Amino acid sequence: MSDLISGVLAGNRRAIARMLTQVENQPAGVDGLLTALFPHTGHAWVIGVTGAPGTGKSTLVNALTKAYRERGQQVGIIAVDPTSPFTGGAILGDRIRMRDLSGDDGVFIRSMATRGNLGGLARATRDAVRVLDAGGFQIVIVETVGAGQNEIDIVRAAHTTLVVDAPGMGDDVQAIKAGILEIADVLVVNKADRPGATQTVRALKTMLDLGHPARLSTSVGHHGRMLPVASVPAPNGSDFWLPPILSTVASDGTGIDALIEAISDHRDHLEHAGRLAQMEQAQFAIEIQERLRDHLMQRVLQQVPSDAISSLIEQVQARHLDPQRAVESILEQVGFAG
Amino acid sequence: MSDLISGVLAGNRRAIARMLTQVENQPAGVDGLLTALFPHTGHAWVIGVTGAPGTGKSTLVNALTKAYRERGQQVGIIAVDPTSPFTGGAILGDRIRMRDLSGDDGVFIRSMATRGNLGGLARATRDAVRVLDAGGFQIVIVETVGAGQNEIDIVRAAHTTLVVDAPGMGDDVQAIKAGILEIADVLVVNKADRPGATQTVRALKTMLDLGHPARLSTSVGHHGRMLPVASVPAPNGSDFWLPPILSTVASDGTGIDALIEAISDHRDHLEHAGRLAQMEQAQFAIEIQERLRDHLMQRVLQQVPSDAISSLIEQVQARHLDPQRAVESILEQVGFAG
Repeated sequence: MSDLISGVLAGNRRAIARMLTQVENQPAGVDGLLTALFPHTGHAWVIGVTGAPGTGKSTLVNALTKAYRERGQQVGIIAVDPTSPFTGGAILGDRIRMRDLSGDDGVFIRSMATRGNLGGLARATRDAVRVLDAGGFQIVIVETVGAGQNEIDIVRAAHTTLVVDAPGMGDDVQAIKAGILEIADVLVVNKADRPGATQTVRALKTMLDLGHPARLSTSVGHHGRMLPVASVPAPNGSDFWLPPILSTVASDGTGIDALIEAISDHRDHLEHAGRLAQMEQAQFAIEIQERLRDHLMQRVLQQVPSDAISSLIEQVQARHLDPQRAVESILEQVGFAG
Repeated sequence: MSDLISGVLAGNRRAIARMLTQVENQPAGVDGLLTALFPHTGHAWVIGVTGAPGTGKSTLVNALTKAYRERGQQVGIIAVDPTSPFTGGAILGDRIRMRDLSGDDGVFIRSMATRGNLGGLARATRDAVRVLDAGGFQIVIVETVGAGQNEIDIVRAAHTTLVVDAPGMGDDVQAIKAGILEIADVLVVNKADRPGATQTVRALKTMLDLGHPARLSTSVGHHGRMLPVASVPAPNGSDFWLPPILSTVASDGTGIDALIEAISDHRDHLEHAGRLAQMEQAQFAIEIQERLRDHLMQRVLQQVPSDAISSLIEQVQARHLDPQRAVESILEQVGFAG
C-alpha cells in the first residue's frame, strides 16, 4: 500500500489534503489510489446542503459543524463551487468559515471549483467524499451554491440532503427552488428571524403538499435510472419519508439542535428495512453508468480517424447529412451499428 | 414529404406547434421528421438570453421582440424552464408576454419545461430552434432562467448570447453570474434606472478585464471539445470579440435599439472571415458527440444481461469491487475492453 493511502487511512491531514488534490487534478494513477481506498469507505454519513443564493448556506454549514463537533463527531466539509474559474471561483463565506473553524483538528475543509469541466465536478466531489470517509470523518458535508442540474448531480452522493430557503427571496428564486425541492430530505428555512418567515414555511408546505404528498425515501434525484437495480418490495405507507420543514437562525444557532435531530431521524429511517442499501445501489448504478459512458466515448474516438469525423461534421454543416445520420455513420465504422 | 413537414416549411402555425410538441415528447419517428427538416435550417439568427434570476429577462425578450417586429423580422421565442415539473414549471413572466405579443402572426412563443429529464432539455431546445428556423422565423430567441450547466448547454445552440444582469443582486448572485459571464457575447445591465447601475457596469467591466481581456469569438462554452474540428488559422487580434456592456430599461424600451445594434455587430463579426462556419462546426461536433454517447450507452445496455449488471452493483455495494473495476468488467462483456 502506498504511503499516501496509509496516511489517508490513518487520518493524516497532509495525506488527506494531497489525496484531495489528486482527486481534483485527476493525474494518471489516481484510479488505482481510489481503488485502494474504496474498501475502507461507507462509514461516513454524507449531508448535502444546497439551495438558492442568499439563503445563508455557509453560515448554516458552520453552525451544523460546530454542533456535530460538540457531539464528538469529526466533520469533513467539501464546499463545491459550480461557478467557473473565470473569477477564481472563490467560495462564498469561505474565509469566514475558515476563521471560525480553523485550528480544530476534528474539522477538515476543502473547496472545490470547476477547472473548465463542470461535468467532472460531480465525479470529483464523489471521490473527495470517499477520501474524507476513508480518512475517518463520521460526518461529511457537501455544500453547493445554486439550483441547476450540477447541484443535483453533486448532492446526489449525499445520504441526507438539506435544501435551504430564506424569507423574502422573491418569485424568480421561488421558481429555481422548485427544481431542487424534490431532492430535499429536510427543508430548512434559514434567517427565520426575518419578516416573512411564516409565509416562506407555508409556501414550502403548500409546494410539498401539492407536488408530492410523500416520496420514496430511496429516490436519488430525477435522472432516469438506466442500469437495473435489484428489485425491492413495493413501497408501503411507512416506506415514505415526508420532508420536515425546519426554521433556523444559523447566525445565532437557533434551531440547529432540531435540525441535527431531523437529520438523525432521516438516517434512522434510511437505516431501517434495507432502504439505505437500496439507495446506495441506485447511487452506484448511476456512477457506473456515468463512468461507462465516458469510457465508451473515449474508445470510439480512439478507433475512428479524426479526419473521418471532421469530414462528417463538414457534411452536416453543409446540410447534406443531419446529425443523427452522422452518428449512425460513426457507429458503423466501429462495427457497432444497430 | 409528410403534411406536417410541408406545413412547417410553409410557416403554418398549427403545423409548427404540432412539430414542437413532437420535439418535446420524442415519439418514435420524430428523428425522421427532423431529418426532413434539417436541410431547410441554418437561416435564422439564434439569440440566447440568460442570467441570474430577477434581472428582468422576460421583459427584455419582450422589448427585443417588439423591436425586431418593427424591423420587419419574424421572431420565434423558446422560453426554457430548467426547473422541475414539480410545480408545473411555469415560465416566469410568460403570461405577461403572452398578453403583450399575442395576436401577432409574426411572433411564435413556445415554453418548454423539463419532463423529468433535464439532460434531454438541451437537445429538445436545439431541435425546437430548428423547427422555428425551418418555419421561416428570421430571429429565434432562446430564453432560460438560471446559471448552471443546463443553461450553458441550452444557450450553446445560440449564435449571440446575451447575459443579463441588474443592479443590487447581491454577492451570492455575483458568484453564480461568473459561471455564465464567459458565455456572454453581449452583457446587458437591465433595470439600469435603479440605484447601483453604474457600479454593476463597473463590476462587470472589471470581471471582463481581469478574466479574459478578449476571447475567441468561436468559443462555444467551456466543455472540452472531444470531436476534432477542421483546423483554423491561429487567432490574431482582430479575430477576438470583446463583449460590450449595454445598459437597458426593458420596461420602457430604453437602450433596446443599441442592444439590437450590438447583436447586429456581433453577427457581422461572426459572418466575417469564416468565423460563423467555424462556430457551427464546433456546435455540430458537440451535438454529434452527445448523440453518440447516448447511442453507445443504449446499445451496451441491450447487450449486457441486466442481472449481470445487478450483480456487479451488489459487489460494489459490498466494497468487493470498486466502480471503475465494475465498468471494466462490463466493457469486457461487450468485447470492448482496452
